[in-house]
Amino acid sequence: MPTLVLIRHGQSTWNLENRFTGWWDVDVTEKGVEEARAAGRLMKEKGLDFDQCFTSLQSRAIKTLNLALEEMGRLWLPVEKDWRLNERHYGGLTGLNKAETAARHGDDQVKIWRRSFDVPPPPMDPGSPFDPAADRRYAGIAVPNTESLKDTITRVLPYWEARIAPALKAGERVLISAHGNSLRALVKHLSGISDDEITGLEIPTGQPIVYTLDDDLAEIERYYLSER
Amino acid sequence: MPTLVLIRHGQSTWNLENRFTGWWDVDVTEKGVEEARAAGRLMKEKGLDFDQCFTSLQSRAIKTLNLALEEMGRLWLPVEKDWRLNERHYGGLTGLNKAETAARHGDDQVKIWRRSFDVPPPPMDPGSPFDPAADRRYAGIAVPNTESLKDTITRVLPYWEARIAPALKAGERVLISAHGNSLRALVKHLSGISDDEITGLEIPTGQPIVYTLDDDLAEIERYYLSER
Repeated sequence: MPTLVLIRHGQSTWNLENRFTGWWDVDVTEKGVEEARAAGRLMKEKGLDFDQCFTSLQSRAIKTLNLALEEMGRLWLPVEKDWRLNERHYGGLTGLNKAETAARHGDDQVKIWRRSFDVPPPPMDPGSPFDPAADRRYAGIAVPNTESLKDTITRVLPYWEARIAPALKAGERVLISAHGNSLRALVKHLSGISDDEITGLEIPTGQPIVYTLDDDLAEIERYYLSER
Repeated sequence: MPTLVLIRHGQSTWNLENRFTGWWDVDVTEKGVEEARAAGRLMKEKGLDFDQCFTSLQSRAIKTLNLALEEMGRLWLPVEKDWRLNERHYGGLTGLNKAETAARHGDDQVKIWRRSFDVPPPPMDPGSPFDPAADRRYAGIAVPNTESLKDTITRVLPYWEARIAPALKAGERVLISAHGNSLRALVKHLSGISDDEITGLEIPTGQPIVYTLDDDLAEIERYYLSER
């Protein structure tokens, strides 16, 4: 049966500062490094192993993957990196502290941006210091200037279908290191979670989520590895 | 003009113990980690940048690459890992301390194994604790049981022709993190060094070697980045 493990990157510097991060490329904290290493040790201890890894173009997810693979003795596994696994693009909120944003826009509005399924935040200002549009890693990509969760799902799922699902169907064991919202997109798809419910699903940092799938890649079982 | 940078992994635990390592998968030392980071910082400071990276299936080369890329803010670059960039397989010498080997086999014999172009060391014993044949990463590969430098070159160059040369010809800037002997293979090929001379060429750990190539990938210039 196909096995898939999802892991959200370890704590980042902006997780810690409670700022909207989105496509801004922050590093993981020391705690985040330790979360990533612990995830690798846990996967090894529980006998999990992989054939193919996928991650985003963002350092916090790549580094989390590298650290986990190192602990597993699996640095040699193939890793494919793609922007479609990036975090949701938070538009004009990128870089703002969540408390400041609430003070400026009101709690209710921030809750709508954070918790609605299809309402994107205001677009990023052209010339914002946080604008990734000029970043070479995104050359040739129609970089969004803001995204709702729905928008994020719309670019994650074609990548799932094109690259990840075929690997699983070919019998490969897959590890994905990504972000809160790109992982929500996958969990919503695999576990059939409603639009309303998915916005409230919290995915903790550094906790491997294991999926056992049937041959059509429908969920048989989903669990946190730390709870087994 | 195509740009190619070669880097030998940072000091490994067995470099430090002066043991024949070959395909055994040792880690880098703390000094090796620092060499790798320093190489990344130097490449960034000198304005080098890349589009595609290649490395072996051995942790010390992969980790060196990851650490250098992290320092450059380039963790997101694509990385292809292939066994044909692995270190020379040292056969039955794998795991032995160089002084012990000399005491057992005589200085002259060890010099022949280390310094001749086409005399391989004795083959690895089946059942040796250092035998990589059963390692899953080498599944599907006709794992050698010993190699001369000539044998190493014989498997490195087809990979160069198939994967690396086409990337350079397509205009990609290439970084290769590999091993003393797989890099000798490339330097011999690119710089037209004779069979006799190449066995004496020492490639220092963690020192980026820069090649400027013409459109046919012949050497225009080769230098240590630290000397510019």
